[in-house]
Amino acid sequence: MITLYDYLPSGNGYKVRLLLTQLGVSFKRVELDITKGETRTKEFLAKFPNGRIPAVEFDDGRLLFESNAICWYLADGTAMIPADRFERARMMQWLCFEQYSHEPYIAVARLLAMHPLLQDPRRALNDMIVQRGYDALGVMEDHLKSHEWFAASHYTIADIALFAYTHVADEGGFELVKFPSIRRWLDGVRSRPKFIPITKA
Amino acid sequence: MITLYDYLPSGNGYKVRLLLTQLGVSFKRVELDITKGETRTKEFLAKFPNGRIPAVEFDDGRLLFESNAICWYLADGTAMIPADRFERARMMQWLCFEQYSHEPYIAVARLLAMHPLLQDPRRALNDMIVQRGYDALGVMEDHLKSHEWFAASHYTIADIALFAYTHVADEGGFELVKFPSIRRWLDGVRSRPKFIPITKA
Repeated sequence: MITLYDYLPSGNGYKVRLLLTQLGVSFKRVELDITKGETRTKEFLAKFPNGRIPAVEFDDGRLLFESNAICWYLADGTAMIPADRFERARMMQWLCFEQYSHEPYIAVARLLAMHPLLQDPRRALNDMIVQRGYDALGVMEDHLKSHEWFAASHYTIADIALFAYTHVADEGGFELVKFPSIRRWLDGVRSRPKFIPITKA
Repeated sequence: MITLYDYLPSGNGYKVRLLLTQLGVSFKRVELDITKGETRTKEFLAKFPNGRIPAVEFDDGRLLFESNAICWYLADGTAMIPADRFERARMMQWLCFEQYSHEPYIAVARLLAMHPLLQDPRRALNDMIVQRGYDALGVMEDHLKSHEWFAASHYTIADIALFAYTHVADEGGFELVKFPSIRRWLDGVRSRPKFIPITKA
């Protein structure tokens, strides 16, 4: 059985939890509190030198980290990854966008709001975080005005990756009222078979 | 012919330039100065709403952005992408690591050093940028102590992606003297057929 090292409030962990559930794959969760340094222990770092969740361990000992890489591996060969080469590239484009232009603002704003006493130098960048977070939402809204999903004509792991932090963006202070296409797409993801909320372990 | 929207000092642009050259694919470069807002014009944003280079336009009008997604697309079906499913996942893991845990520190430190008059709120995060940059180099060194390349037993686009900013990390103030395995690997990349330097348009 797959072991998923996870942290329940993490959108990155949620991507993998949601995908495994939707694929019907059994897994065991190991909860690690990132705010208490539980991903920086010698034991964890020996397996996952990057010291971050989510990370997975397979029965044969193989290890993999990075949420979007784990999702790609798990969904490979299923309809959640397009068969067409260019659609796969577009999916990859949106996965990279999520990690580089979305998560560092939308997710970080939420992390800082959820842990008001956590000392983090990124609090000094609040204006930049808010601006770039709304920039990312603007890019998504623009795409979703004329597309039902992100990478293809159907639901893929790009939708899972972008859903993870967008659907809780309000917890970081982002208001989605001006993004009707995003809200329509969020409802679309929530309506998928075997959907689970981020709070479900 | 492929049109590559590019900015010569950009390591992200260099990834695509280097790969296209090594694959022997002809392309036309359009140079855009990111420090002068040339990727934020109405014309560019109409094609690439994220407003970043590198971005590519194909003869049939198809568009793609995000350096690692472009590299994946261009190298798909070649030896630069492993055929094995798990090796592909590991390649993806390192591509994600590069964008999330490496580029925001190693590349940003270089950008800020190259443009000392550029107003950027991230200057307030200098200590964090230095620390996390060295953390990323530590993760790379750890891997390269026992592996010749990143994702497989041969050179892949994960090596191109990580090479792009690591080989100029000194321009951001990072010293590689304590990372002998990284230096050996950098020499390995420089020795690949059809290698071009970042300064080659």
